[in-house]
Amino acid sequence: MIKINYVLGYENLKIYQDSDWFNFSLDSILLPNFVRVKPTVHKILDIGSGNAIIPIILSKKFSCSITGVEIQKEIYNLGLKSIELNQLENCISFINDDIKEFARKMESDVYDVITCNPPYFKIGDNSSINCSVEKSIARHEISLNLETLLSVSRKLLKNGGSLYLVHRPERFLEIVDEMRKNNIEPKRVKLVYPRKEKDANILLIEGIKNGKAGLIFEDPLYVYDDNNQYTEEIMKYFS
Amino acid sequence: MIKINYVLGYENLKIYQDSDWFNFSLDSILLPNFVRVKPTVHKILDIGSGNAIIPIILSKKFSCSITGVEIQKEIYNLGLKSIELNQLENCISFINDDIKEFARKMESDVYDVITCNPPYFKIGDNSSINCSVEKSIARHEISLNLETLLSVSRKLLKNGGSLYLVHRPERFLEIVDEMRKNNIEPKRVKLVYPRKEKDANILLIEGIKNGKAGLIFEDPLYVYDDNNQYTEEIMKYFS
Repeated sequence: MIKINYVLGYENLKIYQDSDWFNFSLDSILLPNFVRVKPTVHKILDIGSGNAIIPIILSKKFSCSITGVEIQKEIYNLGLKSIELNQLENCISFINDDIKEFARKMESDVYDVITCNPPYFKIGDNSSINCSVEKSIARHEISLNLETLLSVSRKLLKNGGSLYLVHRPERFLEIVDEMRKNNIEPKRVKLVYPRKEKDANILLIEGIKNGKAGLIFEDPLYVYDDNNQYTEEIMKYFS
Repeated sequence: MIKINYVLGYENLKIYQDSDWFNFSLDSILLPNFVRVKPTVHKILDIGSGNAIIPIILSKKFSCSITGVEIQKEIYNLGLKSIELNQLENCISFINDDIKEFARKMESDVYDVITCNPPYFKIGDNSSINCSVEKSIARHEISLNLETLLSVSRKLLKNGGSLYLVHRPERFLEIVDEMRKNNIEPKRVKLVYPRKEKDANILLIEGIKNGKAGLIFEDPLYVYDDNNQYTEEIMKYFS
């Protein structure tokens, strides 16, 4: 069911959302808050923007030119409506295209920052067998896999530019392998734990194009406290 | 100065210790507590045992045959005295040898578990320029580097056996690279943070020889609370 929700941590932001997608939304809110934008950053690209939540939050945090690319027409239209709802048409260019096509048409070394909340599952993982085509494309590496994502990022990032990904911790080693294959050096990781005494279930990672080696694991985040409420630290993280 | 200390978390264990080495001791207490021994585990090897603290703690946790190897005669003698002090001569074989020599003389596929608190710094890192030769060998990769440690572990571990390392998080990618070069699959990581809102400064990692891919980041540990006391969770971790 599609409805308008307030964005967690942002009382003045509203977004059109499929109510079944709550779990993806949390990841999408975590990622733009993990982004550190230097004063010299002017151009940000978000790959696979879905309902445009990442570009929308980025536009509230940073005064930059933000481009979002989404392949699926239906979800793209939802994102476009959300951008209009928040009157952000002047800050965000939202494009309905396959990122591979978009990258092919672009010059190299264009963006200071790239963000992406990519599909988490490999084709063949049967965790969403009953899902719609739209959800399968968002969740499974049908239109975009890590290899493509990283080669596109290598082309489009400026030298010294940052790629920020939210993903699953169990794919961490594949992610760092693909990053390094493409001269994007893993620099900063923040692990997100659902609650205390559980394994991490969300990975936030920053890689820098042609950066020096040296990985930092930042202080982690816990999503829920013992009373199943959002922790103070996660609410603070969004602000 | 050499003195006898009680081992943190183990009221009945005492150890001869150089009082300047406190920071290394914490790492050495964390590692054996990160080890999970299956009922089928019989033989454990600790590489570069120093004052034998890891074999001593392992012997209190598990009923296994434990071997420790230490290259430096002076530190080896200190470890031997600690083993005698705790009356653990029957549980621990303590050997004064270079691990490369030790491994050369051994058969393959011998140990169920290998533990190691290796030197953390590359040769050239100048963080201990004024240290003694003994401390330099313990801290810098003079006698043992990651490449050697992993190739030795590959030889000596049984199929499905576990290698447990404590190291610095900034060397994480090198560690997983060397593990995978030697068919030791990184499986489980626990990051240790000095306190909240700081980056991790200790890495605990388990790799399994010929294991399947799939890395888990366990719940992290914080060493100190806001009052500079050991946290409850770290005291519980040792028990």
